[in-house]
Amino acid sequence: MHEPYTKKEISAVIQRLHNSYKNTEEGSLAKYIPELGKANPNSFCISITTIDGETSFVGDDATMFTMQSISKPLIFGLALETHGLDHVRSRVDVEPTGEPFDSIIRLDNESKKPFNPLVNTGAIAMTNLIKGSGKTSRQEILEKTMENYVGRKIKVDEAVYESEKITGHRNRAIAHLMLHFGMVEPAIDEMLDLYFRQCSFNVNAKDLSVIGATLANNGVNPTTKTRAIKDQYIKNILALMFTCGLYTYAGEWAFDVGIPAKSGVSGGIMAVVPGRMGIGIYSPLVDKHGNSVRGVRVCGDLSRELNLHSFARGSKF
Amino acid sequence: MHEPYTKKEISAVIQRLHNSYKNTEEGSLAKYIPELGKANPNSFCISITTIDGETSFVGDDATMFTMQSISKPLIFGLALETHGLDHVRSRVDVEPTGEPFDSIIRLDNESKKPFNPLVNTGAIAMTNLIKGSGKTSRQEILEKTMENYVGRKIKVDEAVYESEKITGHRNRAIAHLMLHFGMVEPAIDEMLDLYFRQCSFNVNAKDLSVIGATLANNGVNPTTKTRAIKDQYIKNILALMFTCGLYTYAGEWAFDVGIPAKSGVSGGIMAVVPGRMGIGIYSPLVDKHGNSVRGVRVCGDLSRELNLHSFARGSKF
Amino acid sequence: MHEPYTKKEISAVIQRLHNSYKNTEEGSLAKYIPELGKANPNSFCISITTIDGETSFVGDDATMFTMQSISKPLIFGLALETHGLDHVRSRVDVEPTGEPFDSIIRLDNESKKPFNPLVNTGAIAMTNLIKGSGKTSRQEILEKTMENYVGRKIKVDEAVYESEKITGHRNRAIAHLMLHFGMVEPAIDEMLDLYFRQCSFNVNAKDLSVIGATLANNGVNPTTKTRAIKDQYIKNILALMFTCGLYTYAGEWAFDVGIPAKSGVSGGIMAVVPGRMGIGIYSPLVDKHGNSVRGVRVCGDLSRELNLHSFARGSKF
Amino acid sequence: MHEPYTKKEISAVIQRLHNSYKNTEEGSLAKYIPELGKANPNSFCISITTIDGETSFVGDDATMFTMQSISKPLIFGLALETHGLDHVRSRVDVEPTGEPFDSIIRLDNESKKPFNPLVNTGAIAMTNLIKGSGKTSRQEILEKTMENYVGRKIKVDEAVYESEKITGHRNRAIAHLMLHFGMVEPAIDEMLDLYFRQCSFNVNAKDLSVIGATLANNGVNPTTKTRAIKDQYIKNILALMFTCGLYTYAGEWAFDVGIPAKSGVSGGIMAVVPGRMGIGIYSPLVDKHGNSVRGVRVCGDLSRELNLHSFARGSKF
Repeated sequence: MHEPYTKKEISAVIQRLHNSYKNTEEGSLAKYIPELGKANPNSFCISITTIDGETSFVGDDATMFTMQSISKPLIFGLALETHGLDHVRSRVDVEPTGEPFDSIIRLDNESKKPFNPLVNTGAIAMTNLIKGSGKTSRQEILEKTMENYVGRKIKVDEAVYESEKITGHRNRAIAHLMLHFGMVEPAIDEMLDLYFRQCSFNVNAKDLSVIGATLANNGVNPTTKTRAIKDQYIKNILALMFTCGLYTYAGEWAFDVGIPAKSGVSGGIMAVVPGRMGIGIYSPLVDKHGNSVRGVRVCGDLSRELNLHSFARGSKF
Repeated sequence: MHEPYTKKEISAVIQRLHNSYKNTEEGSLAKYIPELGKANPNSFCISITTIDGETSFVGDDATMFTMQSISKPLIFGLALETHGLDHVRSRVDVEPTGEPFDSIIRLDNESKKPFNPLVNTGAIAMTNLIKGSGKTSRQEILEKTMENYVGRKIKVDEAVYESEKITGHRNRAIAHLMLHFGMVEPAIDEMLDLYFRQCSFNVNAKDLSVIGATLANNGVNPTTKTRAIKDQYIKNILALMFTCGLYTYAGEWAFDVGIPAKSGVSGGIMAVVPGRMGIGIYSPLVDKHGNSVRGVRVCGDLSRELNLHSFARGSKF
Repeated sequence: MHEPYTKKEISAVIQRLHNSYKNTEEGSLAKYIPELGKANPNSFCISITTIDGETSFVGDDATMFTMQSISKPLIFGLALETHGLDHVRSRVDVEPTGEPFDSIIRLDNESKKPFNPLVNTGAIAMTNLIKGSGKTSRQEILEKTMENYVGRKIKVDEAVYESEKITGHRNRAIAHLMLHFGMVEPAIDEMLDLYFRQCSFNVNAKDLSVIGATLANNGVNPTTKTRAIKDQYIKNILALMFTCGLYTYAGEWAFDVGIPAKSGVSGGIMAVVPGRMGIGIYSPLVDKHGNSVRGVRVCGDLSRELNLHSFARGSKF
Repeated sequence: MHEPYTKKEISAVIQRLHNSYKNTEEGSLAKYIPELGKANPNSFCISITTIDGETSFVGDDATMFTMQSISKPLIFGLALETHGLDHVRSRVDVEPTGEPFDSIIRLDNESKKPFNPLVNTGAIAMTNLIKGSGKTSRQEILEKTMENYVGRKIKVDEAVYESEKITGHRNRAIAHLMLHFGMVEPAIDEMLDLYFRQCSFNVNAKDLSVIGATLANNGVNPTTKTRAIKDQYIKNILALMFTCGLYTYAGEWAFDVGIPAKSGVSGGIMAVVPGRMGIGIYSPLVDKHGNSVRGVRVCGDLSRELNLHSFARGSKF
């Protein structure tokens, strides 16, 4: 099994796509928290890391941005490793939802469980499952998990983190409502703190492609050879990213692009082609769904040009 | 590329699973239309057809049942071939929905389009796209499409068809509401007639595995070598079946079983392992979601034993 | 008990209000059915009939318009007289709803009953309760009921009636859905025909004030001395008009204007001041709720100037 | 204007109704907060205070209970007096809602305003409008408002207040969500504290009838002759109680009983017959809507026997 396209071929394709879309001005900076509105709208980077650990990129790899929702599948994986499938499934459903990412509405459903771990409610519930001897210990576990995927030390963006904390009224409402329904433990403030932290880790587009390649490589980071997540949970995480990874655009993405992926409102997209590569894209202009406009288009083109759709003939080999 | 398990190995696995579940009595006969309630609750058949065209089966292959919703992805494929992706997408969304299969509620959404082609609203809209010189011509196109997948002549079950027509008030309501929103052409009665027909084609479990194998074989029926659907649309149809194929259980199915599939309330499940095989199961006892209880369990076990999960390592080769 | 304002005083007030609002151009003609879009936007009439049977009016009393939803409380009264409170309440709830008048969504609620008799679903269910030896007999009963309130012969506007029939897909959807839920009898076509007829009776603003005065006079038409509805049901009908009479504006109307009333999308408002008077207003420019813009304003002013709010001190005497 | 029934006649009626219903065991103690579950299920009191200030009662007037939602119309009145109609209406709608009293769902509507001041969301928004130089001052204003209606010193039930504070996660969620939407000021903790206090004032059934008589007497407490609320807002408050006072049973209550009223989950009902009397009932067994079972029945009978329905002939004079 080897990647059918050479590094040179991949570099040529992403160079061409970067040129095609670098002047696309559709979309707008996320206003979700004030700090995100300060991003440079022109920043744009495409990065691909194969499971051999080789990274090709084009564009602005210097700009750091916060992970936002891209941390969600990783924290879900941490919960699976810590508690096993059955316990985690008792706390969260895995159904797609037509509702927006920060919807509070659908909490009040029959199962009294969040719809899935990739919407805020579910992600907060997963954060509540981080196990440690104390607050500092839990922060370290969170950080270590991220670092295993990224392959280097990472830091919380303090300005974004503070902005999240100050303005996160909706997430605070979700936490209180989940407490009302008995979905989470009473230590709400720490849980939200951990949640805001995981959203605020600084990464660049190359980090995203390494994260993707780690999942594509059955959980082993191909640049450091460190295992970030047990093999057995990969298929579940990828299936979830396939059905629920792009907010209210998830169905259309699965249909057209067909690659398990997770986007964040800061403009990042991390995508996984199992057994082949991880893709990381950064461009902070997002559409009405909260997905990077250039990112969605680049991934659509990559899917067609490199035959990456999960259900296209010969996409895996 | 060849199937890693021999026919003998596959036969042994399905024989064992048939034994395991043949006494499972959970679930109940669908009451959706009176005629379905007359099925034999003990009838149970498992069939697998590889892309080489070899079929292994165990159990009751004599009992015929109506396709019900299993016809939906095939009619969607017909619409794609007839009108192309853009026109079809202007008539229907491809987003998963948390709502039940016969929900009328979510029609009144912003896009004024049905959620996807695998819920009743979307399937009726797709039926409206069958093109022909007249009513008889459209019926023939419908029949021919089904026959290409099944690989033999098939017939409408007249009793079920009449039962659908007489009691299909909810589907009739959907049709009028879609007319109100300008989603369909005014010839509602014929459209519903065609819709009730496509739900009423008689098949057995072996037919379902042949349909699945046709989709697994990039659109060519492996038993007749006849093309049933163009290669280019397969990935879209399978992605849709992956995200939306099992009613309100679709997310859980994708997560656990991980195989593109479509179920029908009469108790059939048709599943597709791209490049490997089609699976057909029949057992008419269905759960609260409308999926065959034994069928769901058998597919879960098959996925684990034969490594069929779309995102499991080495599931395609 | 007598009306504290003289006919001369009332005439002066409505003359002044007609002047105030005759140039108001807000709102637009209803597009609900094509025929309504042909109304003269400048037509404007205010009429008051006291329970002594004296009518004062100003403006265009010549223009006829169709009753539309204003017929709904009268048909509800007919159902109450025919079947009694208990049977009628087994077919319809009496709860206000935040949903639009033609909402199909909330049919699928726990009680499987329409929210109330003043939304389309409930009104169609009430129409289903008209009892007669045949279709013609039921049409005559419908017509006779209306004539008792209006005090003269009335006719269906054939153009509007045909327009309703041809374009009433949403109401047809409601009927099929109610049949699905077992809420109505299977003779859907006749039921809808009767429903479209009752919406299409031609009246003028003076007719509306006479209808209102009949309800204000405990069910006896003060111009003809004919009883239109039994005394005992008046309080129920008026309470329902108070809580549900103005579509999604009902709460605000109750709060500010405080008079039991019913509006129609053709631009009529019929209001009832118990023991005092009926009010009829016609101006076809309607707001986003479907209520006549000038009509709402005139009634607000009338309420303040003539002390008509149901819960204002001394409004009844 | 005088009450047509003598004190002796009224006493006889309520004595008879107390006998009729004192053994009714339907309903159950509210479990909303643990403290409410400790009430004596047999406690039952009916009290009527005419606008002459005469109180007739029968049953257990010694048992104190907390006001719960019965405080909501009074705090709404305080907001109207403090800020005027326009400002208050910019913060809250006055539309009935089919949703339960503690629904968080419908906050996310188009107007971004709570549905009305008698649901939790709206009541919390109204509490946010209490104006004072500091926390203690606002507590005193709240207390003074209640005392003007009740006509004596009242106290917060500390056990219930603490129980509300500890378990009020849903109300805390509402507060954070309203902050998210910019509906309230950021001092959430104090706002909730004031809200929990207003729910926790201890009263008995006689207090409720005095509150009702104060509203029936155009805002002047008939026992103390103190004005509790300006005349001009009475009609608005009563219209709101008429359309929204009994949770999801409001429409049925308006239809059948026809008296502006407000219930509380602790088992109290306070009703207002304008120009005639206030009614106070206490019986802590509540139905699925949260209304006192005996209270609803007693009020229905009182409405018929004393002709109290707002839209019954001769109910005001």
